[in-house]
Amino acid sequence: MDFFFEPNGIAVVGATPEPFSGGRNLVTNLTLGYKGPIYPVNPKYDEILGFKCYSRVSEIDGPLDLSIIFVPARAVPQVLEDCVMKGVRGVMIESGGFAEVGPEGRALQDQCLAIARKGGIRIWGPNCMGLIDTAKPYIFSFVIPKDMQEAIRPGHVSLIVQSGLLSGGFIITLMGNKTLGLAKVCSIGNKCDVSENEILEYLLKDPFTKVVCLYLESFTNGRRFFELAASSDKPIIVLKGGKTPSGAKASFSHTASLAGNYALIRGILRQARVIEAEDFFEMMDIARTLEKDFHFQRSPAGKPRIAILTYSGASGIVTTDHMEKYGLTLAHLSPQTQKQLEELSPDWMPVKNPVDYWPAIEKNGPALAYKQAISALHEDPEVDGIIVHIYAGHGIWLLDAKEILSGVKGPRKPILFWLIGPESVREATRLPLEEEGWPTFYEIHRTVRAMASLFEYCR
Amino acid sequence: MDFFFEPNGIAVVGATPEPFSGGRNLVTNLTLGYKGPIYPVNPKYDEILGFKCYSRVSEIDGPLDLSIIFVPARAVPQVLEDCVMKGVRGVMIESGGFAEVGPEGRALQDQCLAIARKGGIRIWGPNCMGLIDTAKPYIFSFVIPKDMQEAIRPGHVSLIVQSGLLSGGFIITLMGNKTLGLAKVCSIGNKCDVSENEILEYLLKDPFTKVVCLYLESFTNGRRFFELAASSDKPIIVLKGGKTPSGAKASFSHTASLAGNYALIRGILRQARVIEAEDFFEMMDIARTLEKDFHFQRSPAGKPRIAILTYSGASGIVTTDHMEKYGLTLAHLSPQTQKQLEELSPDWMPVKNPVDYWPAIEKNGPALAYKQAISALHEDPEVDGIIVHIYAGHGIWLLDAKEILSGVKGPRKPILFWLIGPESVREATRLPLEEEGWPTFYEIHRTVRAMASLFEYCR
Repeated sequence: MDFFFEPNGIAVVGATPEPFSGGRNLVTNLTLGYKGPIYPVNPKYDEILGFKCYSRVSEIDGPLDLSIIFVPARAVPQVLEDCVMKGVRGVMIESGGFAEVGPEGRALQDQCLAIARKGGIRIWGPNCMGLIDTAKPYIFSFVIPKDMQEAIRPGHVSLIVQSGLLSGGFIITLMGNKTLGLAKVCSIGNKCDVSENEILEYLLKDPFTKVVCLYLESFTNGRRFFELAASSDKPIIVLKGGKTPSGAKASFSHTASLAGNYALIRGILRQARVIEAEDFFEMMDIARTLEKDFHFQRSPAGKPRIAILTYSGASGIVTTDHMEKYGLTLAHLSPQTQKQLEELSPDWMPVKNPVDYWPAIEKNGPALAYKQAISALHEDPEVDGIIVHIYAGHGIWLLDAKEILSGVKGPRKPILFWLIGPESVREATRLPLEEEGWPTFYEIHRTVRAMASLFEYCR
Repeated sequence: MDFFFEPNGIAVVGATPEPFSGGRNLVTNLTLGYKGPIYPVNPKYDEILGFKCYSRVSEIDGPLDLSIIFVPARAVPQVLEDCVMKGVRGVMIESGGFAEVGPEGRALQDQCLAIARKGGIRIWGPNCMGLIDTAKPYIFSFVIPKDMQEAIRPGHVSLIVQSGLLSGGFIITLMGNKTLGLAKVCSIGNKCDVSENEILEYLLKDPFTKVVCLYLESFTNGRRFFELAASSDKPIIVLKGGKTPSGAKASFSHTASLAGNYALIRGILRQARVIEAEDFFEMMDIARTLEKDFHFQRSPAGKPRIAILTYSGASGIVTTDHMEKYGLTLAHLSPQTQKQLEELSPDWMPVKNPVDYWPAIEKNGPALAYKQAISALHEDPEVDGIIVHIYAGHGIWLLDAKEILSGVKGPRKPILFWLIGPESVREATRLPLEEEGWPTFYEIHRTVRAMASLFEYCR
């Protein structure tokens, strides 16, 4: 796979100087980080964006590992023959119009695959958006340069997706939250040759990748996927498109995928400790939680024991309801913790879990109350994880995130935050929390889902 | 209930000039909209914020319908005796420390109730945050004046909640989205006398209220609630706290509620066409959808038939998967619609539902493609509702919401939008859509949930 991830020489077949075109974006994106030779290919031009332009791949003189192909589908077989002639090692076919559009496209795709197999070339795609590697940065994709350049933030979550959106507009949206960094984003489309398994294997060895997310409409080789997942020491999260009969039918038109029986698939995934996501943002919320360096202690038997620290009784109750759904249970606080929490509480307020700490907050201010309570709960051997509710507002509610967590000593248990408040002030609390490695969420059920995923993975 | 919602004269027992105190906030909040006489009550002061201060309620000369009580729990019975002497009609007890803290508090609450019953006074609360009426505006609550004043936006959704958060910080957070307006927010706490049923009955007749949301930890009189809901011509949404055994236990410490068997409750609610919410923001997302003036046509039998218009195959598939979960089905587009959609599509692209319109968007630009497609789908008699996916970005992706919806003629079928994009540009598309009455959502599953709620209600 190295010639896809670290190619020596890249041709862009279908390059053009036309503004706002994918063929121009591809070349521009390469210039943003790729240091090797770049060869635009288009018989209509002598030069594109300052690079010598070739009329065909086989005319290129110089090292060439990878061709990115962005010409109409019917022209692709000819380009492939030409790539074989040149001795190219891999091609990314980013054009659509193959198996996803019907029998005619399927035949074209089969023809391409035959040429590649015969000529010893690997195909990534077709009908895909290629690869983004944020560390370099490499953008082997026709996404809009300015949007993507502003959006990508290096990090440790990698994606393998059968979707253009999830490697383009979704990433751009997601990065606006400033709470996640990405390592590699691999859009594999119809995956007629290079499969999710080969890329997963590569990413499981990639030092930049700590967590892998996959959006898949089918499994190329379910047994191999299971083996990789079951032996992985990195968390793997899967969002499966086409779980339901109607969704499966739709996925056939998208990437020509045969979706399979999801009840069966789900069981197998669970056995391999793969975390299942139900929606796009949920997948990323789970990923940024699993990416953190939390330490796990668990009671030898039974469900993960969670403490809830809240300023709102109703929120504590709704959190408890969601916890039960996800297999988490309320911790029984130790007498020591109970005592520490009662020190700041008014006499009339009994301390229980969920810890409705409003009276203590009212009495001592949120800064002190949160600091003491978080520290006490974190030290409690009866507590496996903590969900903290914060209202980030004006005045005394403008909390110093570092300060309230300064009592947390030793290896970190999972502490996840449900955080609301007026947007302007909310960020002043949310971003420092995230920077210090504490995940925050906007909806209660999502906070609970993320907490559950930690224990699903570390079971 | 009129003396709670339109009182002639209000006393604030526990008023104080101390900055940042609830007792001061209560008086300040009254001055923001209440035009009747305001009487601070506190033996320590002669005057508070320019109002003559009384040492006890019975000393007040002038009309007095309502006393808001914000003194420590143990002092409340005495205040109530005094209110009886003055002939007050209703009290809002906003202090905590009653049945929610244990047997002692429960006894105190029973004592208060006995005094009120004997003296012919109604109690709202205790342990609550009172009432907000945005149309006036009336803020009969100790919330921080500046935060709440900036936040409240008049609208048509009313809330009845056993929660301080849901009538305070949550509202402030929510209003930041600029996509919802509120009519009346009623925080009823332990509801020892005035119940959710009486307030619901009032709101069902209130001309400002189009939809009622309830966060409840118990039903005071389930039969009466069922009768009201079943005969209501306004949608009712319930988020029940304490659905699970552990949640139910926690709700007892919060508002001393006995949560009941939720499986049974759920069945009864469905029969009365009450929509069930699972989380706070979900409740409000459903409310702002049900508030819109959509027209319903339904096939005489079968599930609601939904068309999906998307720029992303994967999003169409994930939407389809969620639809199946919520009892919605993919519409079979009429030949007429099929033909209209194919006009803008490249020849090689078959048009199906979900309508993956990326090729047409690429060929014609999103503005034209969306306009034509939305109009065609809206006119299709085989389509009951439409979910539209939009990427709101820079350049050609900065869509004119009014323009793309200008082809929608006649009574509006539900059209709901899943909208992502970089935050700065996203708002430029989202807000005009919302202003024109088209709900937008940030997560796919939520969009589908909201669509399903429309048909749950209008079945």
